[in-house]
Amino acid sequence: MEVKVAIDCMGGDHGAHVTVPAALGVVRGDPDVSVILVGLRDKVERELQQLGESSGARISIRHASQVVEMNEAPVAAMRAKKDSSMRVAVNLVEQGEAAACVSAGNTGALMAISRFVLGTLPGIDRPAIATVLPSLKGRTYILDLGANVNCSPEHLLQFGIMCSELVSSVEGKQRPTVGLLNIGAEDIKGNDQVKGAAELMRASDLNFHGYVEGDDIYKGTTDIVVCDGFVGNVALKTSEGLAQMLSTFLREEFGRTVLSRIAGLLALPVINAFKGRVDHRRYNGASLLGLRGVVVKSHGSADAFAFGFAIRRAVEEARTGVLAHISERMAHIHKSAA
Amino acid sequence: MEVKVAIDCMGGDHGAHVTVPAALGVVRGDPDVSVILVGLRDKVERELQQLGESSGARISIRHASQVVEMNEAPVAAMRAKKDSSMRVAVNLVEQGEAAACVSAGNTGALMAISRFVLGTLPGIDRPAIATVLPSLKGRTYILDLGANVNCSPEHLLQFGIMCSELVSSVEGKQRPTVGLLNIGAEDIKGNDQVKGAAELMRASDLNFHGYVEGDDIYKGTTDIVVCDGFVGNVALKTSEGLAQMLSTFLREEFGRTVLSRIAGLLALPVINAFKGRVDHRRYNGASLLGLRGVVVKSHGSADAFAFGFAIRRAVEEARTGVLAHISERMAHIHKSAA
Repeated sequence: MEVKVAIDCMGGDHGAHVTVPAALGVVRGDPDVSVILVGLRDKVERELQQLGESSGARISIRHASQVVEMNEAPVAAMRAKKDSSMRVAVNLVEQGEAAACVSAGNTGALMAISRFVLGTLPGIDRPAIATVLPSLKGRTYILDLGANVNCSPEHLLQFGIMCSELVSSVEGKQRPTVGLLNIGAEDIKGNDQVKGAAELMRASDLNFHGYVEGDDIYKGTTDIVVCDGFVGNVALKTSEGLAQMLSTFLREEFGRTVLSRIAGLLALPVINAFKGRVDHRRYNGASLLGLRGVVVKSHGSADAFAFGFAIRRAVEEARTGVLAHISERMAHIHKSAA
Repeated sequence: MEVKVAIDCMGGDHGAHVTVPAALGVVRGDPDVSVILVGLRDKVERELQQLGESSGARISIRHASQVVEMNEAPVAAMRAKKDSSMRVAVNLVEQGEAAACVSAGNTGALMAISRFVLGTLPGIDRPAIATVLPSLKGRTYILDLGANVNCSPEHLLQFGIMCSELVSSVEGKQRPTVGLLNIGAEDIKGNDQVKGAAELMRASDLNFHGYVEGDDIYKGTTDIVVCDGFVGNVALKTSEGLAQMLSTFLREEFGRTVLSRIAGLLALPVINAFKGRVDHRRYNGASLLGLRGVVVKSHGSADAFAFGFAIRRAVEEARTGVLAHISERMAHIHKSAA
């Protein structure tokens, strides 16, 4: 299926220097993908030129005169920058010109703009941010990652439903298992929010596994882990910090002596295979779920390799009709409840 | 300074088989430490015998007829098992026979029993669980790890104060820096609980750094990271899960082919140096802070090497007078406020 993706070329730490080559890579690798490169026309054109490419049928440029800064307050960015590359990219989705959009920019601004421009799906109170992580069994989806710091049990239930549809669409997994993040597997553990959500999930048609703990994310105990945005954000950032520390220590140990450097050279293919397996760039691309449009957020520090994964995630979500699936599911629930 | 430690020999996944050799190791390594081994006398004696040791001046046995199970409900364990090894060990601290106690048993039961038997220090509403983790800069203390799922800003402030005294006592670090765990460094981020706590910390005499994020735990941005028990537990368990997954993947990659196995053998000294550096067993021993007595919780799955670290942590806390320091600090605050 043909998919057109709007790309916020100015977002992220590296802007067009990363986003444009990544977009080209995806277009060249998939004949059914086309892109609208949104941003300062001069900059985008220059990047294209340097890559020996120019705009055409599958690569178009949409000029946007403003840029949302990484640390700008979301509401300010939304109100004051109506012609930002981020805003224009989301507008293209709303206008039906693009089937999805991708940005590596300011997360808060992207969520605020997307909610304002696209609105939420019927039955969804709040959009959530979901990402996929590697696990011992394959891949684990986790949400919310920071969009919602205070969640009611109903919100957590909705997160579970949205992510179930995401996983069954994108991963082709029927009835994925859902775990609710808690601090113990026993029923008595946890706060009121989590206990309430467990009750709702148990009564729903979710494939609810029950409570899971932090280590279950990487054990792959369930396909999906649901938590509020505060907890999810801490889990994700803590993981990033730990991985970074371990990688630094490993490098230091292999660089310590001449002998250890030689051992490091000999072990390089193995270390590289290991790194490839857990390379966070392969997991880049968080879905803003619950909106009336596909919006994918790339990590701000993504390089072209990583940003390409975020674009391909947007393509997959558009192709497999995740939004329609979530809408149908919510409509079905409301009909049953009525 | 001489320190006598009461050891719950029956707690943890391995019981006396781990706790008794660990206690012996500490006694043999430090002439100023003596232990009271609490548990089923037969079992403890048999373990001592097998290690070629018997009770004497520095190693005494206190019989306790019951054992708190790992999954027993804390309140039930507290009420029904007045002669459990855990309860008797805590009693010994209360009675002044021991300066500290250590258990690898059920965390909830240990906290409930300790609160009931020892009570909390003046000015402390709720005890918290603190542990130390490795970081790029050295060591980071984090609390709470699960004792309190709902915390007020005042509780978080108290956690910061208690842990500051712990770190300055045990690590000899004057005015350790305190970070408040949040999902962004900006002032507008976070929930009401965290914003309230930041205000209190800013107004206090803590060396308050401001907000930190999950990755700062392992970056070592601050000496101490304060959070509620739900978030702290998730951060810790998520770290355990990630470390476990990475270690499994690394082992798999080094075992994949004959060549990679050879590379693994050559890299073994380096890998072992790396493992030693991040070995979680060296960080075993969480402090139950805020009680009128030193209580240290070991990981349930600890081996003798790891359990030894928990015992030594208890010794250090008793030796450096952490409790007196916390009490003085709280008294000073109350005097200033009055």
